[in-house]
Amino acid sequence: QMPRGNLETVNHRALLLAQLRKWLDSLKFREAFECMRKLRINLNLIYDHNPKVFLENIETFITQMNSIDHINLFLTELKEEDTTCSMYPRPEGSPIQLQPVSGQKKVDVVCDALRSTMETMDPNKFCLSILTAHVKKTEPELEVALQKVHELRENPREAPGAVSAEEALKFLLFLVNVNDLYEHSLGTYDFDLVLMVAEKSQKDPKEYLPFLNMLKSLEPNYQRFTIDKHLKRYRKALLHLSKCGPEHFPEALRLVREQKLYSEALRLFAANDAQYKALSCAYAEHLVEQQQAEQAGLLLWRCGEFVGALQAFAGSSSWRNAICVAQQIPLPPDQLALLARDLAEKLTEQRRYSEAALLLDQYAKDCEEAILALITGAVWEEALRLIYMHDRQDITETNLKPALFDAVSSHTVFLEAQVATFARHRARLAVVREQKEKARLDMLDEDGPDCPDAELYSEASSVMTGSKYSHSNSRISSRSSKNRRKAERKKLSLKEGSPMEERALMYALGEIVTTVDKMREEVHNLLKALVLFQLDRQAEKLQQTFEEALQTTEAALPEVWPDGIQNNNAPLTGPNSTANSITASFQQQQQKPAASQQDVEVMAPPRMRSGVKWKLTILK
Amino acid sequence: QMPRGNLETVNHRALLLAQLRKWLDSLKFREAFECMRKLRINLNLIYDHNPKVFLENIETFITQMNSIDHINLFLTELKEEDTTCSMYPRPEGSPIQLQPVSGQKKVDVVCDALRSTMETMDPNKFCLSILTAHVKKTEPELEVALQKVHELRENPREAPGAVSAEEALKFLLFLVNVNDLYEHSLGTYDFDLVLMVAEKSQKDPKEYLPFLNMLKSLEPNYQRFTIDKHLKRYRKALLHLSKCGPEHFPEALRLVREQKLYSEALRLFAANDAQYKALSCAYAEHLVEQQQAEQAGLLLWRCGEFVGALQAFAGSSSWRNAICVAQQIPLPPDQLALLARDLAEKLTEQRRYSEAALLLDQYAKDCEEAILALITGAVWEEALRLIYMHDRQDITETNLKPALFDAVSSHTVFLEAQVATFARHRARLAVVREQKEKARLDMLDEDGPDCPDAELYSEASSVMTGSKYSHSNSRISSRSSKNRRKAERKKLSLKEGSPMEERALMYALGEIVTTVDKMREEVHNLLKALVLFQLDRQAEKLQQTFEEALQTTEAALPEVWPDGIQNNNAPLTGPNSTANSITASFQQQQQKPAASQQDVEVMAPPRMRSGVKWKLTILK
Repeated sequence: QMPRGNLETVNHRALLLAQLRKWLDSLKFREAFECMRKLRINLNLIYDHNPKVFLENIETFITQMNSIDHINLFLTELKEEDTTCSMYPRPEGSPIQLQPVSGQKKVDVVCDALRSTMETMDPNKFCLSILTAHVKKTEPELEVALQKVHELRENPREAPGAVSAEEALKFLLFLVNVNDLYEHSLGTYDFDLVLMVAEKSQKDPKEYLPFLNMLKSLEPNYQRFTIDKHLKRYRKALLHLSKCGPEHFPEALRLVREQKLYSEALRLFAANDAQYKALSCAYAEHLVEQQQAEQAGLLLWRCGEFVGALQAFAGSSSWRNAICVAQQIPLPPDQLALLARDLAEKLTEQRRYSEAALLLDQYAKDCEEAILALITGAVWEEALRLIYMHDRQDITETNLKPALFDAVSSHTVFLEAQVATFARHRARLAVVREQKEKARLDMLDEDGPDCPDAELYSEASSVMTGSKYSHSNSRISSRSSKNRRKAERKKLSLKEGSPMEERALMYALGEIVTTVDKMREEVHNLLKALVLFQLDRQAEKLQQTFEEALQTTEAALPEVWPDGIQNNNAPLTGPNSTANSITASFQQQQQKPAASQQDVEVMAPPRMRSGVKWKLTILK
Repeated sequence: QMPRGNLETVNHRALLLAQLRKWLDSLKFREAFECMRKLRINLNLIYDHNPKVFLENIETFITQMNSIDHINLFLTELKEEDTTCSMYPRPEGSPIQLQPVSGQKKVDVVCDALRSTMETMDPNKFCLSILTAHVKKTEPELEVALQKVHELRENPREAPGAVSAEEALKFLLFLVNVNDLYEHSLGTYDFDLVLMVAEKSQKDPKEYLPFLNMLKSLEPNYQRFTIDKHLKRYRKALLHLSKCGPEHFPEALRLVREQKLYSEALRLFAANDAQYKALSCAYAEHLVEQQQAEQAGLLLWRCGEFVGALQAFAGSSSWRNAICVAQQIPLPPDQLALLARDLAEKLTEQRRYSEAALLLDQYAKDCEEAILALITGAVWEEALRLIYMHDRQDITETNLKPALFDAVSSHTVFLEAQVATFARHRARLAVVREQKEKARLDMLDEDGPDCPDAELYSEASSVMTGSKYSHSNSRISSRSSKNRRKAERKKLSLKEGSPMEERALMYALGEIVTTVDKMREEVHNLLKALVLFQLDRQAEKLQQTFEEALQTTEAALPEVWPDGIQNNNAPLTGPNSTANSITASFQQQQQKPAASQQDVEVMAPPRMRSGVKWKLTILK
């Protein structure tokens, strides 16, 4: 017995914890437990103090407790929290206890460890604690617990101290809500168990007996299906229903549609079943509604539903598959040509000119349209290939050359406009940054050095730099990231003086850099076509304009995105800064929530693909 | 007159400069000039003190100088350097003088401004100063100066104080090296001028007269060509030679080859000339040597050299052009098929399977080979398209399906290996960083706080963080950037304890992220093919493996590339840091040379293309 009054008067928590640690280190669980219970120390500490030692000495623990009630008390008090981190921090300098990294949760680890030890030691004696261990897991194992109760009823234990099924059930009802227990008993499909629980609960037999009797009258698989459905365990329900024979298939199909259990359902039937095909069609319908027509097409095609598959593929511009299915049907040549034209039209709308041309050439047999599509899409070499393949050099003069002239002039105009906008934004950015820097230095100056709460300034300056806005953004993170990004961009107003103007300018500049950089291939191909048709002068002009655009943008990168990313977090050093102000400016940087993805996208310098060689050496 | 002795004894530079500034501000150029000359103050200050005011008052300046010698002295002392930044810094608080931003050099601006003013005021009186202004430009305008001398000789000035051609030439010879002047006089093609200079120089007439006489005997264009060639002005030489008629073309071609003046030469001849064709062939030969066979092909094709063009295109895998030229020749069908096979083989080596298949299918008329190429290249949908187009479903069973099985298993193995390597590198990176942090804190601790030269530590720590290596890199910046990058990577040894290990690990981790991210499209296409052939189980496994790989790598990004870029420049704050040490660590950051491009590439987190949807919803 502890010298009770004594400890209570001193009541020095540090002393108390030191004593507890000593007991736990020497495996005196009993003493520790008694003391903790009396002084209301959280029992989790028994485990948290040294998880490894505890798990290695569970039998000792159980033997020392020597009481179902105490073990149950310990089990029910278990929480995920590590008390040595929260309530009872370790004294400084003590070795850090590594958590056994198993990926499992602490509560589950302790419950499972205690239960299995008790089961080895004496399953009868520890029966109620074993039930507690099942019930207290983060995902309560109610059905296992119920099963054990049921076993007790079937085979009552003779051993001294053994618990009866009655007692065990009562105990469970004390731990768990009665309705939960009833539902879970149903889930075992064991009517004896259900009745047992129902009787113990204060449920009205008039309520549950008719239902149970109805269930009993059903064919076993259908019975299980009905129970599963009642318990909203739809996957299990579907599994059982699928075993009930084809006459129940319509019901299964309904269930699949209602609960969107399409992939699960497909796995339950053989691929050559009629039912498999029906499910595939239902799934395909659903997928089309979900804008997944291509996947719908694949499902339909593989189960032989060619017409449906063709529709689905055509609807999703999955033109290769559409054409394959059409040829498998097989569609007569004129209809195939029509299909090819339809598909080509859609692809043209999506600016997929090469693919459109292939369809027009090979399936609609219309090489002229194909060549024109390629010319529209600026796919010069491929256009030439078809021109020579079909011996249609006339199109070179009538369409290809004029298109080259158009392309070179529109590219030049476009590039010049981009460069002009770039210069404007860049100049404005310099002004905005200078103003911001000035505003911040003014703030620091006002109160002069040795100002003890410099944190205030850094916070104030963070408002200026827009981090307040990014905070408010985090509130709407539940929206889809696409929407969020859109919202983000809306905030990025280029209007002079807008709070996010700097960021808006950087974003706009980045867009220009990316746009210009993306044109390398296009310009390269255009230059080659121009040279081929002896349009060297135009080619030279374009090459120069593009070169200048690339150089202008590339040269500005270090200025617009200075040294890494956080341009507006330049440290507050300077003649008037103090250790405090410097440190504060750092803490601000460090406390800032990790930059979100779209922040990084705006703030990181765009990468230019200087590896993509586009220039022609034959042009000066 | 200045109270000379007085100033010399006091000789207080600040006082002197203050006085000079006062004079210059009140446009007393004469006083300023005299004083500066006597006390050896750099005359550039007259302009540098306030460029705008000087340029607006040039006439006043010239009038006050009132001496050719003084003006010449000022002109000859002009240097690009801004003396108010170097020798005579402005007093603090004085308004900063904005340099007139014209893109022109200061020396040229001043020379041109003085010259044009003098030409308006009195070209005769200021003749020698005008010549000085021509000669002192950063690109001396010797020919213009010579031309002016020649004019004086033709039309001697009657005005009082006017200079004779003799005097002017003497003056020029005093300013410029005689040989330079002689060469430049030749460049005017004006033999009178040449003789005038030659006579004034101490050159031996036996030396130059035969040469001049020979030149005089030549046809004018050929004469100019000979002079240009003598002066190594090859472009001009070519221009004049091109006007000498076809009998001189071989000589022109030789010149073009020797001096690589191909593009210039092409511009001098009409596109339908025989000479244009010859030049094109020569240029093409050169381009092929320079690994620019495709451009060579374009030049040959457009001037009708089809066979040469075909070779050039075939050599550069420019297969579309090659085929077009072949059909223009036209090659007989069997040879065309052979060409297509050759091209396809090369493309296959370059993993350009789709293009190889097109050649095999459409030009070699071998659909089986085409389909096999597509299967090898994992271009599943296109393979299927050809299978259906040519009604060769047998290949589906014999080749396509086995290839799908291979692909899914090799992808899975590959992804698992990447993930394993990633985990290993990531764990090691954590260790390396911890060690580095510990080493740095230890260093700070050793001397404790209040250590006045904390800069030493930050420098020492910069050695640890590898910036010493990046310094040594800057020395080899003359190498091509590709070589530099290679060298950089070689330094990045993954060996444990290597000085750049952290960087090497980050680089390796980045490579894995990029590799995995790049597989999105490939995996997506493979998944669709697997589903089509009812290989759902394999597809699900692959989808899971890939999903895990993406998640593992994406989740590690913030840890591997923490908050922006400069992970190893975390500020030195902590219980033992001082204002000095914090500031020092900053200065280190700021003084670091701007991160070079390849640094950024290693240090910036790779971007994952989360916008590329690859997952199939029909797979769980």
